[in-house]
Amino acid sequence: MKTLADYIRSIPDHPKPGIIFRDITPLIESKEGFAESIDQLEKKCRDLGPIDIVAAPEARGFIFGAPLAMRLGAGFVPLRKPGKLPCKTVSVSYSLEYGTDELQMHVDSVKPGDRVLLLDDLLATGGTIEAAGRLIEQNGGTVAGCAFVIELVDLNGRTRLNNRNVISLITFEGE
Amino acid sequence: MKTLADYIRSIPDHPKPGIIFRDITPLIESKEGFAESIDQLEKKCRDLGPIDIVAAPEARGFIFGAPLAMRLGAGFVPLRKPGKLPCKTVSVSYSLEYGTDELQMHVDSVKPGDRVLLLDDLLATGGTIEAAGRLIEQNGGTVAGCAFVIELVDLNGRTRLNNRNVISLITFEGE
Repeated sequence: MKTLADYIRSIPDHPKPGIIFRDITPLIESKEGFAESIDQLEKKCRDLGPIDIVAAPEARGFIFGAPLAMRLGAGFVPLRKPGKLPCKTVSVSYSLEYGTDELQMHVDSVKPGDRVLLLDDLLATGGTIEAAGRLIEQNGGTVAGCAFVIELVDLNGRTRLNNRNVISLITFEGE
Repeated sequence: MKTLADYIRSIPDHPKPGIIFRDITPLIESKEGFAESIDQLEKKCRDLGPIDIVAAPEARGFIFGAPLAMRLGAGFVPLRKPGKLPCKTVSVSYSLEYGTDELQMHVDSVKPGDRVLLLDDLLATGGTIEAAGRLIEQNGGTVAGCAFVIELVDLNGRTRLNNRNVISLITFEGE
């Protein structure tokens, strides 16, 4: 039987030498693979208790986050790059290998007490989702868990997200 | 009873004077509104016959396209801006008010004979989805229909997409 990992395309030396890029497009383009990934995310995330909001960074996070929100009976909050949202926003910065980046959401997107599930396609060093967690908490929400389709275990993102409930479906060793 | 249109936030003079921006974030952030929008899309799109692939442009298109693909038992193909996809791509250009833009997908994303549903959050002049349709057809797929959450009827996007099956959930008159 085909496992979820079998759907991931690994591209050596992309985007630079020594890095193996893990491409999710064959997974989501397969109706069986995509359905199985959402089924598994739903099952694991139900253990986290009630979820009011699924929040996911653009753009690949939307592909898994939106169907998962639907399955969990939650709303969906897109976490966007600067300049994309039309109303008043709140934002958080985080470090990249070179420079910094920023995530934004509308100021009214999360209500105090909302239980929020953070979701992204891939957990590497955890910087993006760690920042997303700060954004949620600074605006009164509670981070119920952090879910990923792929986890690159050697990069220790799980450690950076300590005190969070980290869920992943597929793990790869090595970068 | 609250209709889908009640969830849309209208922002006058954004991004420039004379334009009313239609903001979908209150719709998707509401579990009731988001679920109702996907229910209605599913119901209308089932009339189009079997769908192999839902294809949607980044990034807001992903928010409705991915859950709809799940509901229809289809795969999901993200149509991306240049430089986002790691493998060999095919692409299509289209005109904007100032300049041109481009959508890409992986060369193996659509198989000959695939019945493809195109989806975006909003139909304005129709330029993006008209280009997406060319991309699908140039690679052997058939466009089964074009679905939108919002249609700005005065911009005549529906006319530009003639010979397509155009579906929309919410219509606004005026720009």
